[in-house]
Amino acid sequence: MNPATFENSPFLNACRLKKNTRVPVWFLRQAGRYMAAYRQLRSRHSLLEMVKDPQLAAEVTLQPVQAFGVDAAIIFADILPPLETLGFQLEFVQGEGPLIRNPIREASDLKKLKDPDVKKGLGFTFEAIRKVRQELAPRGVPLIGFAGAPFTLASYAIEGGSSKDKALTKTWMRRETAAWGVLMESLARLTAEYLTAQVEAGAQAVQLFDSWVGELSPEDYRAYVAPYSHQVLSAVAKLGVPVLHFGTGTAGFLEDLRDAGGDVIGLDWRVDPAQAAQRLGPRVAVQGNLDPTLLLAPWEVLKGAADRLLDALADRPGFIFNVGHGLGQTTPEDNVARLVEHVHARRLV
Amino acid sequence: MNPATFENSPFLNACRLKKNTRVPVWFLRQAGRYMAAYRQLRSRHSLLEMVKDPQLAAEVTLQPVQAFGVDAAIIFADILPPLETLGFQLEFVQGEGPLIRNPIREASDLKKLKDPDVKKGLGFTFEAIRKVRQELAPRGVPLIGFAGAPFTLASYAIEGGSSKDKALTKTWMRRETAAWGVLMESLARLTAEYLTAQVEAGAQAVQLFDSWVGELSPEDYRAYVAPYSHQVLSAVAKLGVPVLHFGTGTAGFLEDLRDAGGDVIGLDWRVDPAQAAQRLGPRVAVQGNLDPTLLLAPWEVLKGAADRLLDALADRPGFIFNVGHGLGQTTPEDNVARLVEHVHARRLV
Repeated sequence: MNPATFENSPFLNACRLKKNTRVPVWFLRQAGRYMAAYRQLRSRHSLLEMVKDPQLAAEVTLQPVQAFGVDAAIIFADILPPLETLGFQLEFVQGEGPLIRNPIREASDLKKLKDPDVKKGLGFTFEAIRKVRQELAPRGVPLIGFAGAPFTLASYAIEGGSSKDKALTKTWMRRETAAWGVLMESLARLTAEYLTAQVEAGAQAVQLFDSWVGELSPEDYRAYVAPYSHQVLSAVAKLGVPVLHFGTGTAGFLEDLRDAGGDVIGLDWRVDPAQAAQRLGPRVAVQGNLDPTLLLAPWEVLKGAADRLLDALADRPGFIFNVGHGLGQTTPEDNVARLVEHVHARRLV
Repeated sequence: MNPATFENSPFLNACRLKKNTRVPVWFLRQAGRYMAAYRQLRSRHSLLEMVKDPQLAAEVTLQPVQAFGVDAAIIFADILPPLETLGFQLEFVQGEGPLIRNPIREASDLKKLKDPDVKKGLGFTFEAIRKVRQELAPRGVPLIGFAGAPFTLASYAIEGGSSKDKALTKTWMRRETAAWGVLMESLARLTAEYLTAQVEAGAQAVQLFDSWVGELSPEDYRAYVAPYSHQVLSAVAKLGVPVLHFGTGTAGFLEDLRDAGGDVIGLDWRVDPAQAAQRLGPRVAVQGNLDPTLLLAPWEVLKGAADRLLDALADRPGFIFNVGHGLGQTTPEDNVARLVEHVHARRLV
C-alpha cells in the first residue's frame, strides 16, 4: 500500500493540524442499524458474529463510505471483545446491551484474569482491517482503528454491563485502590497492544473511546483514570499515526483529557464548540460535536446547527466534523447524506 | 410561626450570601431507601402512597433531620405528580421507575391537557409542608419545597418515562417548535404556581430540579429551555424565599443556568467546585457537589474528599455542602452521620 495515496486526505490533514480546502466529516457509529444495508446483514447475524467475521465486518465498515462519501472509515468492531482475551465472558442480550457473565467483584478476582493473547484473540479485527484497507486504497479514504479506554473497560468488567451511576466501579477504585491500579494497568497494556496491532494491520489512525468517563469528577479522573489513559496514548503515539481521544460528559475536565494524550480531542455535544476549542488550545485538533439527535430533526434545523458549528470551527486548523456521540438507530439516511454534502460544500480559505 | 426562629439558620444564611460560623449541609434524596426508618415505611406503602399521604410524607421528611442533624429538610415529594394535574397518568413500576401511560407524541395531543387545579390536585404536599413546619419550628431547621423544571417535566411527558438520549423530546422541540413553546409555557406556569403554593404552605426555600437538562447542548439549552426556567424562577423570586436552581450535567452551560435565575446554583460532581464557583461569580450562592458514590467509600476516602471540597469553598460566602446528585440506596447511614458531623466541625473565620 502506498501511503502517498492518502497524502491529501482531509481527515488525516486535520488530525495533523494541516490546512485543508474542505472540512472532513465522519460520524461516530456511522455503520449501524439506521442504515438499511446494515439491517439487512444484521437480520441474519448477531452483533458479535458480524464483529468476529472479517468479511462481514469489512463489508459493514465500507457501507457508510460507499453510501455517504464520509472522509474516514472506522473499523466495525466493539470495545468489549478485548475483555474476552482476559477471560471475561461477553454476550449481547436483546434490549439490554452487553453483559459480562463473570464480572470481577473482589480484588482477589483479579487472579482469575488470563494473560491475553491479543493477536490470536482479536485476529478477526486485524483481518477485517486488512480487507478494508484493500477496498479503500483506490478511494484514498483512511481507516480508523479503535479501542475502549481502560476506565470504560474496567466499568464493564466490574459492573457486568451498563450501569447508571457506576457505583460498583467507583467503590472498587476507592476501596481497592491497589487492585484498581493492577486492573487498570493490565487494561492499559491490553489496549495499547490491541491498538498497536490494529495499526500494524493497516489502521491509519486510532481512536480511544472513554465513553463512560463523564461519570467521574475531575478530581477522580485525574487520580484514578488519566494516568492509565496516558499510558495507552503515549504508547500509541509512537506508532506514527494520528491518535484520537474521545469521551462523553467531559466538559468539566477537557484540559485533563487533552493532557492525558491524543492528537485530536473528541468533544461531545454538551460543550460549546468554540469555547471548548479555546480551552483545548492550538496544539490539538478537535473533532465533534453535533448532538446526534439533531439528525432526527427537519433538514432546515439540522442545517442551521451544522452551519453554526462550521462557523465556529471550520477555519480552525485541525477540525473534523462529527457528531458528539453515536448516531441513533432512527437516524434517516437521507439526513446523513445531506449533511455530508453540506459539510463538503463549505469551502475553506 | 415566628420567622425569627430561623434567623440563624446556616442554610438560609448561606442562601442569602450571609456570613456563617459553620457550613450548612443537607443531601439530595436525604430521605430515601438507604435509611432503615424509610425502608420500614416503604415496605408497607408504595412511593406514590407515601408522597400523597401528608402524615407519611411529613414523617419521612423529618427522618434525616432527626437521624443526622442536617441543616435543612426537603419536603418528601416527587417531581411528577404535578403532571397528573394536566391529565397525565403516572405510575411507578418496580425496577423501571416512573411511567406516564399517556405521553404526548403529537402537537395535537396538547389539546388533551387539562387546566390544572394545583391547590386541589397537589394538596397532599401543601398539607405535608404544614405538618413538617410545625415539627421543625422548635429546631429552627428550615424546610425546602421543590419542583421539577419545565424541560425535565416535558421530557417525562413526551418520552413517557426514562430515556437515555431524550431523542423524542429533542425531536419534538426542534420539529414542533411552536407546540413546544405552548407545552413549556404551560409547564412553567404550573411549576410557578406549584412552588408558590408550597411557599404559601410554609416552605422557606424552594429548589427547581432540572435533572435531565444535561442532555442538551448549551445552544439548545439557551434556545429551547432557559426562557421557561427563567419564567418559573423569576415568578418565584418575588416570593421572598431563597430559590435554588439545580441541574446535572451542566458543566457546559453553568453560566446560562445561573442566568436563568436562582439565588443558589446547585452543582453536580462533574465540575471542579472552585472553578465552577469562579465561573458563577460572587452574586449567587453555591450548593454541592460531592459525588454521591463517595458515600459508599471507606470513611478516610470520603473524609479526604469532603475536606478538599471544604478547602475549596467553605470560606466562600454562600456555600452549602451537599452531594451533586441524590444519595444512592446502598449508602451506609453511618457515613451520612459522620459526614454531617465532619462538615459541622469545620469552623469558619
